[in-house]
Amino acid sequence: MYKAVIIGSGNVAQHLLKAFQKSDIIDVIQVFARNKGSITHLIDAEKIVSNFDELLEASVYFICVSDHAVVEVSSKIPFSNKLVLHTAGNIAIESLDPKNIRGAFYPVQTFSKSRDLDFSKIPVCIEVELESRYKVLEIIAFSVTPLVYRVTSEQRKAIHIAAVFVNNFVNHLYEIGKEISDNNLFLFQILQPLIQETAAKIITLNPDEAQTGPAKRGDMQTIDSHLDFLTNENHKEIYQLLTQSIINHGKKL
Amino acid sequence: MYKAVIIGSGNVAQHLLKAFQKSDIIDVIQVFARNKGSITHLIDAEKIVSNFDELLEASVYFICVSDHAVVEVSSKIPFSNKLVLHTAGNIAIESLDPKNIRGAFYPVQTFSKSRDLDFSKIPVCIEVELESRYKVLEIIAFSVTPLVYRVTSEQRKAIHIAAVFVNNFVNHLYEIGKEISDNNLFLFQILQPLIQETAAKIITLNPDEAQTGPAKRGDMQTIDSHLDFLTNENHKEIYQLLTQSIINHGKKL
Repeated sequence: MYKAVIIGSGNVAQHLLKAFQKSDIIDVIQVFARNKGSITHLIDAEKIVSNFDELLEASVYFICVSDHAVVEVSSKIPFSNKLVLHTAGNIAIESLDPKNIRGAFYPVQTFSKSRDLDFSKIPVCIEVELESRYKVLEIIAFSVTPLVYRVTSEQRKAIHIAAVFVNNFVNHLYEIGKEISDNNLFLFQILQPLIQETAAKIITLNPDEAQTGPAKRGDMQTIDSHLDFLTNENHKEIYQLLTQSIINHGKKL
Repeated sequence: MYKAVIIGSGNVAQHLLKAFQKSDIIDVIQVFARNKGSITHLIDAEKIVSNFDELLEASVYFICVSDHAVVEVSSKIPFSNKLVLHTAGNIAIESLDPKNIRGAFYPVQTFSKSRDLDFSKIPVCIEVELESRYKVLEIIAFSVTPLVYRVTSEQRKAIHIAAVFVNNFVNHLYEIGKEISDNNLFLFQILQPLIQETAAKIITLNPDEAQTGPAKRGDMQTIDSHLDFLTNENHKEIYQLLTQSIINHGKKL
């Protein structure tokens, strides 16, 4: 088994730790956590450290900290020539400290503490600077999920941006749906089956085929009546921009 | 049982017909379809008519045609004082022909021919102009789904608008995710688990709690790097507007 250290104790660190605890390839010998209590429910307290000097030697280090801290953390690892992987979508592997073999292990998922996830259904995008280490990285990734994709830094960034659209922005549209429901005194849960079906449809249909609604039909009467109804300027602006985008997209097809 | 006629043969008509065929309250005695072949797989050919003069007398008529045709169709029903319900989100019941008792039976869902749906999981928003007919309408609705909501025309319109945000616009964001994947040669399916989890999260968390990402964190470095990366002006504009909306929303909380 490969000895691994996880640096960080947030959502990604916790989900990754749980996944590796089921793997027979990776042995997590230590977790670095500023606040030990945040992760004692998942690993023995004596395996948790909060000082970089205490880090043990391992084959691979996973950096699962906030984006802005990744580079600094990479320089604090007191070893060299180890495989050091960050788990961020938007950080070039070249920005990690070059004393180690740098790579990325980017799980394309949204993690929350309150939700259990099956790691074997999460795609992991991997990248490593040294071709000779690729196979090891791939074996590690396959030990937690069959959905392993080799990508370039450019692609990983593009995936991260696409994820912002299909996750952060989509959730914000749910938020606007919630605001409209609050303002008009209907229950948000009336929209739930529609939200779930909209996502489910995309498993079998591509988004082009799945598109419906007034913008897709070019139904200006409904669009105008919706814009008349909306009083929130922000909702109106988003409605107009996305409607126009759907109309323009239809013209390209 | 109440005798019913369904006018229309599109997605809503077909899903409604299938639901009523399982109900012991509604007997669909006839379907009006311009193109009989479009619905012969669901009902005997002799029960399908394509001429309004051939419409049978029934207790209730469901108008399931395109929005722009609803009003005209309502005037062509050769009976009066019947319950006439349209199934649209954005049409006031007062615009139907007043010779009948006008109402709405609006299923809040996206229907496609290629996808089977369990009608008992679809919310139906109901409305009728005559209070004395409300109970009948409610019984009819409950015969196909427990998710029955009495709404006003204003609320129905608001629900329709919210549906545009959480369905049509969300699907368009999936489309943009697909475009980014095509342009950067990664598989759209890498985003699938994220799309499904984003929707699933909203069942237990409210959208505020579920919001994550660079805009939520106010991470301007990542936002700027994403904007630098995006070359499609339309994607850029949508990215900027939704990012700003998330940032402003965070300030209000």
